[in-house]
Amino acid sequence: DFLNALQDVRPAFGVPEDTLAAHIRNGIIDYSPDFVQVFNSGKLFIQQVQNSDRTPVISLLLAGKPGAGKTALAVKWAIDSGFPFIKMLSPDNFVGYTEIARVNKINKAFEDAYKSKASLIIVDEIERLLDYTHMGPRFSNTVLQALLVLFKKHPPKNQKLLIIGTTSNLDVLREMSFLSSCNSVLEIPSLTSGQDVCNVLNQLGQFSTEDLKLISRNFSGAIEIKPLLTLAETAIQASGGTLGDRFLEVYKQTKYS
Amino acid sequence: DFLNALQDVRPAFGVPEDTLAAHIRNGIIDYSPDFVQVFNSGKLFIQQVQNSDRTPVISLLLAGKPGAGKTALAVKWAIDSGFPFIKMLSPDNFVGYTEIARVNKINKAFEDAYKSKASLIIVDEIERLLDYTHMGPRFSNTVLQALLVLFKKHPPKNQKLLIIGTTSNLDVLREMSFLSSCNSVLEIPSLTSGQDVCNVLNQLGQFSTEDLKLISRNFSGAIEIKPLLTLAETAIQASGGTLGDRFLEVYKQTKYS
Amino acid sequence: DFLNALQDVRPAFGVPEDTLAAHIRNGIIDYSPDFVQVFNSGKLFIQQVQNSDRTPVISLLLAGKPGAGKTALAVKWAIDSGFPFIKMLSPDNFVGYTEIARVNKINKAFEDAYKSKASLIIVDEIERLLDYTHMGPRFSNTVLQALLVLFKKHPPKNQKLLIIGTTSNLDVLREMSFLSSCNSVLEIPSLTSGQDVCNVLNQLGQFSTEDLKLISRNFSGAIEIKPLLTLAETAIQASGGTLGDRFLEVYKQTKYS
Amino acid sequence: DFLNALQDVRPAFGVPEDTLAAHIRNGIIDYSPDFVQVFNSGKLFIQQVQNSDRTPVISLLLAGKPGAGKTALAVKWAIDSGFPFIKMLSPDNFVGYTEIARVNKINKAFEDAYKSKASLIIVDEIERLLDYTHMGPRFSNTVLQALLVLFKKHPPKNQKLLIIGTTSNLDVLREMSFLSSCNSVLEIPSLTSGQDVCNVLNQLGQFSTEDLKLISRNFSGAIEIKPLLTLAETAIQASGGTLGDRFLEVYKQTKYS
Amino acid sequence: DFLNALQDVRPAFGVPEDTLAAHIRNGIIDYSPDFVQVFNSGKLFIQQVQNSDRTPVISLLLAGKPGAGKTALAVKWAIDSGFPFIKMLSPDNFVGYTEIARVNKINKAFEDAYKSKASLIIVDEIERLLDYTHMGPRFSNTVLQALLVLFKKHPPKNQKLLIIGTTSNLDVLREMSFLSSCNSVLEIPSLTSGQDVCNVLNQLGQFSTEDLKLISRNFSGAIEIKPLLTLAETAIQASGGTLGDRFLEVYKQTKYS
Amino acid sequence: DFLNALQDVRPAFGVPEDTLAAHIRNGIIDYSPDFVQVFNSGKLFIQQVQNSDRTPVISLLLAGKPGAGKTALAVKWAIDSGFPFIKMLSPDNFVGYTEIARVNKINKAFEDAYKSKASLIIVDEIERLLDYTHMGPRFSNTVLQALLVLFKKHPPKNQKLLIIGTTSNLDVLREMSFLSSCNSVLEIPSLTSGQDVCNVLNQLGQFSTEDLKLISRNFSGAIEIKPLLTLAETAIQASGGTLGDRFLEVYKQTKYS
Ligand SMILES: Nc1ncnc2c1ncn2[C@@H]1O[C@H](COP(=O)(O)OP(=O)(O)OP(=O)(O)O)[C@@H](O)[C@H]1O
Ligand SMILES: Nc1ncnc2c1ncn2[C@@H]1O[C@H](COP(=O)(O)OP(=O)(O)OP(=O)(O)O)[C@@H](O)[C@H]1O
Ligand SMILES: Nc1ncnc2c1ncn2[C@@H]1O[C@H](COP(=O)(O)OP(=O)(O)OP(=O)(O)O)[C@@H](O)[C@H]1O
Ligand SMILES: Nc1ncnc2c1ncn2[C@@H]1O[C@H](COP(=O)(O)OP(=O)(O)OP(=O)(O)O)[C@@H](O)[C@H]1O
Ligand SMILES: Nc1ncnc2c1ncn2[C@@H]1O[C@H](COP(=O)(O)OP(=O)(O)OP(=O)(O)O)[C@@H](O)[C@H]1O
Ligand SMILES: Nc1ncnc2c1ncn2[C@@H]1O[C@H](COP(=O)(O)OP(=O)(O)OP(=O)(O)O)[C@@H](O)[C@H]1O
Ligand SMILES: [Mg+2]
Ligand SMILES: [Mg+2]
Ligand SMILES: [Mg+2]
Ligand SMILES: [Mg+2]
Ligand SMILES: [Mg+2]
Ligand SMILES: [Mg+2]
Repeated sequence: DFLNALQDVRPAFGVPEDTLAAHIRNGIIDYSPDFVQVFNSGKLFIQQVQNSDRTPVISLLLAGKPGAGKTALAVKWAIDSGFPFIKMLSPDNFVGYTEIARVNKINKAFEDAYKSKASLIIVDEIERLLDYTHMGPRFSNTVLQALLVLFKKHPPKNQKLLIIGTTSNLDVLREMSFLSSCNSVLEIPSLTSGQDVCNVLNQLGQFSTEDLKLISRNFSGAIEIKPLLTLAETAIQASGGTLGDRFLEVYKQTKYS
Repeated sequence: DFLNALQDVRPAFGVPEDTLAAHIRNGIIDYSPDFVQVFNSGKLFIQQVQNSDRTPVISLLLAGKPGAGKTALAVKWAIDSGFPFIKMLSPDNFVGYTEIARVNKINKAFEDAYKSKASLIIVDEIERLLDYTHMGPRFSNTVLQALLVLFKKHPPKNQKLLIIGTTSNLDVLREMSFLSSCNSVLEIPSLTSGQDVCNVLNQLGQFSTEDLKLISRNFSGAIEIKPLLTLAETAIQASGGTLGDRFLEVYKQTKYS
Repeated sequence: DFLNALQDVRPAFGVPEDTLAAHIRNGIIDYSPDFVQVFNSGKLFIQQVQNSDRTPVISLLLAGKPGAGKTALAVKWAIDSGFPFIKMLSPDNFVGYTEIARVNKINKAFEDAYKSKASLIIVDEIERLLDYTHMGPRFSNTVLQALLVLFKKHPPKNQKLLIIGTTSNLDVLREMSFLSSCNSVLEIPSLTSGQDVCNVLNQLGQFSTEDLKLISRNFSGAIEIKPLLTLAETAIQASGGTLGDRFLEVYKQTKYS
Repeated sequence: DFLNALQDVRPAFGVPEDTLAAHIRNGIIDYSPDFVQVFNSGKLFIQQVQNSDRTPVISLLLAGKPGAGKTALAVKWAIDSGFPFIKMLSPDNFVGYTEIARVNKINKAFEDAYKSKASLIIVDEIERLLDYTHMGPRFSNTVLQALLVLFKKHPPKNQKLLIIGTTSNLDVLREMSFLSSCNSVLEIPSLTSGQDVCNVLNQLGQFSTEDLKLISRNFSGAIEIKPLLTLAETAIQASGGTLGDRFLEVYKQTKYS
Repeated sequence: DFLNALQDVRPAFGVPEDTLAAHIRNGIIDYSPDFVQVFNSGKLFIQQVQNSDRTPVISLLLAGKPGAGKTALAVKWAIDSGFPFIKMLSPDNFVGYTEIARVNKINKAFEDAYKSKASLIIVDEIERLLDYTHMGPRFSNTVLQALLVLFKKHPPKNQKLLIIGTTSNLDVLREMSFLSSCNSVLEIPSLTSGQDVCNVLNQLGQFSTEDLKLISRNFSGAIEIKPLLTLAETAIQASGGTLGDRFLEVYKQTKYS
Repeated sequence: DFLNALQDVRPAFGVPEDTLAAHIRNGIIDYSPDFVQVFNSGKLFIQQVQNSDRTPVISLLLAGKPGAGKTALAVKWAIDSGFPFIKMLSPDNFVGYTEIARVNKINKAFEDAYKSKASLIIVDEIERLLDYTHMGPRFSNTVLQALLVLFKKHPPKNQKLLIIGTTSNLDVLREMSFLSSCNSVLEIPSLTSGQDVCNVLNQLGQFSTEDLKLISRNFSGAIEIKPLLTLAETAIQASGGTLGDRFLEVYKQTKYS
């Protein structure tokens, strides 16, 4: 199955191998059937780019709440694709960049991609690349316009290109007409049942069967994979009661957002 | 008929021949009577510019939903026109350009056109040249003003000029008073029946008569030519069931936009 | 009468003679009594500037729908005036100019005019000089302010100045308080009857008496002189039916704006 | 009386004498009792600045509709004041100036004024110095802030300063808190009766007693002094009917604004 | 008592002594009990800064209508404080400054203050330093942010700092959260009775007992100290009737704002 | 207990020790159980960063009304943490900085932190770093975007990072999606009972048992720790009545905000 992400990585040209792998720090856990379906859809689009001559460029938009695992999943697909050129555009590397500098760096990445037979570009946290904020709203129209063009621009003849954009603000991107530059939208589901949650906690190796039973019965609501992993850790560090109790207690306290 | 676009191209000065042709990658398929009418109207305006001395400049606005085939159709007309000077202004070549640089490049294209006896300029995806986004809305007024002037500016005496603008945002351009700089607006129709869709799929050579019958009976809704061709390809790559089944299945999943 | 515009042009200093004349490509056709009245009012203001010492500067605003013949009419008056200095400020010559460059060029034209005993300046398509767009709305306040001042600034002692501004957006200019810098507003009427239309078509020499009768009976609505002349040309180029039929058919199709 | 403005001008340092006088081209006509009262109020404030030691700076705001005679009246007061330093800041001299250049030029005028024992500064058409337009609204806040400070800044010890600002947009200036930087506001009245109008026309020497009687009986509405003088001239230039008839006819046609 | 402001000034380092004193041109008149209370509160805060070690910085906001005497009162406190370093930041000295230049000059004043054992800074007319205007509203956020920080920044160890800001727009500053950077707000009261007004007029030495009686009986409404002093002067300069009559007449005419 | 903050400080690399300590000028007083709980939660998160390998970065948002003790508490945690690298980003050090300069300085602090095995960064008064003002609202989106990225960016492998942001505008930061870059939000409670207040006053050593009883019975409302300490000082400086009376009197007067 696809849970052991890091065994089979192949040489990547655009970005150092271990840098990519660092984004899957905690593996890819198969927490629900809905998640598996999204995972497989992505795989099929990668296959289409590789095999079909009529669709040399495919662009996907991978959406999900904050912490839903977007970055990790996009990287997982990229590593598994075996494409000779893989490039990740991450907001981490754009702090304090002017609009123009952003566009130049983004454009350069695509130019580089066009030089390889088959390329894969991850454009992570599109809203951050756009400097988007709900207040106003404000965003860099210059960067937006560049992405609108690049997401549907054709690579040179006989070359293939897969683009994976990620976002926590699907509605905003829709309002920006971003979706008409994308071939498909994939949404990562939240964990919405005790079963989903326990599928994850079980992998950590520190929760007992009793803990998991307790949680499975008492969990309600919805949570994303990244905050869930952090919560589990806080519960482990805390003291008093069983680990199951502590987890539920800590979870209860996090209804602030 | 006009379906075999690429046989009869003549030397073009403003833009390399094959670059133009690349925009008609999948030919021009005669999918419906409405489409044929739009196709012919364009041809007649080209003829008017060539023959009449009282209308030395004609500007057309070619509108249609995303993927309606605007770029391909404009290019088809251009290649068929046989005008000695053909120039295409495409957003692909403006990524990261400042407003001023955009206007200069656009202006330069028109200046060049004024040097030829008969010229044809395609201004593709006007909303992208304007950096238009619905949020705000925002756009480059500088570029808009330049286009408003250039779309109705007369070429020097005894010279002819045909301008074809394309857009997916006709309503926006109307609100910008763009239409008073244009002589005519032509709208590409969507494919709205199983018959329209099968006219296209049939050309691909991979759908059997059964597949087409199934689709013809079961297709409902509306779709544009470009996403239709991509969908067909996804269906071909997928597995399980007949190709007709797979096509209808994949089509069903794309109601996100 | 005033229909044969181009016979009697006199030497103009500010702008080459034939450049001016090119704006009256299709003559000035006397299409209706209302039009004649506007034409004469303009003539009288020119006379007032020439004769009166108490009003050394007069500024007129010539308004009309797109294609109403504003540019041609202003040029006709200018050529007929016989003023030693005539200058035309047209958006064609401002494409891509910055606000400051615009103001400088405009200001320079007025400075030049102040050097002549009697000057006439046409400020064509004021909304375009202002980079006005309804969306926002946006416009160059810098250019607006310059025009507000220049339209009522007095020339040096013993000198005369007539200013003719044209616009398709009278309401907008009113809201900008532009009218308090103008001495008078003249509005070009649309063609609103079969009679008006046939007055024009008759001049073209290609419509038969039958054609004109047919059109005269069946025309309804309103149209401006410039699109009318283009429509006539399209009808002439088309084929099938009488010219009168084709004209009415083509007219019917142009209800898009 | 005060009707013969130009006889008794005294040497002015800040601005050439005849430049100032040119603004009273058509004299100051005593058209109504209300006007006389405003005229006298201004005179008294000038006297207060000259005589009182406790109020070394007085700033007046002279308001009136477009063409009400603001510029002429302010200049009349200035010339009559006999102040050794008189400076006029007029929009005519600021066309195309940047905000900063405006403020510098304005500031410089005040600096110069502070060097004289008694100074008078006219700040004409404040809304134009501010680049104010109702659309938006937009204006130069930089210039506004400078004027807000300068209108109440004290001159150096033992020096006197009178500031006269003029405006057609009193409501706008009130909303900008401009009035709290002014000591008093004076409003020029419109001409609102046949008597007011005939007081003016009579001075022109071309209207007969019959003409004036006719006009006196038939005039209704309100008009400002400057458009009234222009209208009279147009009537004189026109032909047909008595001068009185023509005047009333021409007046009727000017209800556009 | 505190009415004779100018006798006992002590050497000030930051600003020339007489420059400060010029702001109290007409002394500080004890016009009402409410005024005296505000006056004393300010004195007590000055004392607290001098004596307490736990509150090394105190910032006061002195509010009042235009002409309420804010500048004079702040200066009076400053002169009386005997602090070795006194600095006044007044809009008079910022005309035409850019935002950055403003912040630099303000910052510099505070830096200088931090070098003295005990410092007092007057920040006069904060709304003017901010280039605030109600239209928009617009203001310099850069200057605002600097003041928000500087008004609560601690001086170096063992040093004392008193900051007095003045404003006519208390509500605006409240909306800007300015009050959370201030320790206390003091509001100067208007003169609201004939008694208050006569307390002031009596000091001028030109109003007779009859005049004052008349005014005391007939005054109604509210006025600030600075316009009151100007009104009194206008009444003195005018002619006709008793001084008391003239004062009431002139007061009546000033209801324009 | 944790009340004696300054005894046990350890060497800090990023910021001089005594500079940090200066922010706890008046110690950390244990004024209520709610406060203690917040204090302890913070301690636990620090512990989690130190011990857990799965959560190498934790970002906390410390919220509270103006004067709630945010700066002092964050500094207290930092000093107690014993982290080898401690850096404080305070608005005091950003006065007049451009947006870019701000981002560069902030980014530099994080870069420095990434060089240490375990780092703690205090980002004090985030709304001030953002130049946030409610009017508009306005703020530096450039700085906001940088913080959104830096608050969740991972340190290099095997390194730890704790980030403590403080704010008085929690609602604003929520609207800016700031909370999705934070792992937890902690809110400092106000003092809401006479008991809370007396816990503080008692520490000052100047209020008698009678004073405290009086205050304990009569205090109502809510106050923050910093204004409470200032109020106490004002009461001490004032005269008349017992200290308890004076405190209640002064407290009554401060209901302006
Ligand atoms: N099924 C899964 N899908 C994605 N991530 C998973 C999954 N199972 C475990 N993980 C782990 O969860 C974490 C997901 O974090 P990630 O940063 O990818 O989320 P994100 O949605 O990109 O967050 P953000 O909204 O902050 O960008 C990673 O550490 C990853 O290894
Ligand atoms: N009748 C047709 N009209 C236009 N294009 C057609 C037609 N039949 C087939 N095609 C093919 O469909 C595709 C149309 O894509 P094209 O890029 O021109 O669409 P578009 O409307 O410009 O898309 P976008 O909105 O993204 O700019 C081309 O590959 C073209 O060869
Ligand atoms: N009576 C007329 N008045 C004006 N133009 C006329 C008249 N009769 C014929 N014409 C012709 O009609 C055309 C009018 O075009 P013109 O460019 O002046 O219109 P316009 O109102 O300036 O258009 P636009 O709104 O695009 O600026 C000219 O070619 C002119 O020769
Ligand atoms: N009583 C009067 N007051 C003012 N101007 C008068 C009077 N009588 C005659 N005039 C003449 O009327 C004209 C007034 O024009 P002026 O330019 O001063 O008006 P304005 O209000 O400044 O106009 P605008 O609003 O365009 O600035 C001048 O030519 C002046 O000589
Ligand atoms: N009790 C008083 N308080 C303040 N000023 C007084 C008082 N009595 C007399 N004055 C005089 O009144 C004048 C007050 O003017 P000042 O410029 O200080 O007012 P302001 O409120 O600062 O005005 P503005 O709103 O224009 O800044 C000074 O000349 C001062 O000498
Ligand atoms: N329990 C406590 N928590 C925080 N500060 C305390 C506490 N007890 C006493 N103090 C003292 O109270 C003061 C709190 O002031 P501080 O500047 O930290 O508040 P703040 O919330 O940061 O204010 P601001 O909103 O102005 O930034 C410090 O002098 C601190 O020594
Ligand atoms: Mg991510
Ligand atoms: Mg296209
Ligand atoms: Mg025109
Ligand atoms: Mg004027
Ligand atoms: Mg003041
Ligand atoms: Mg703080």
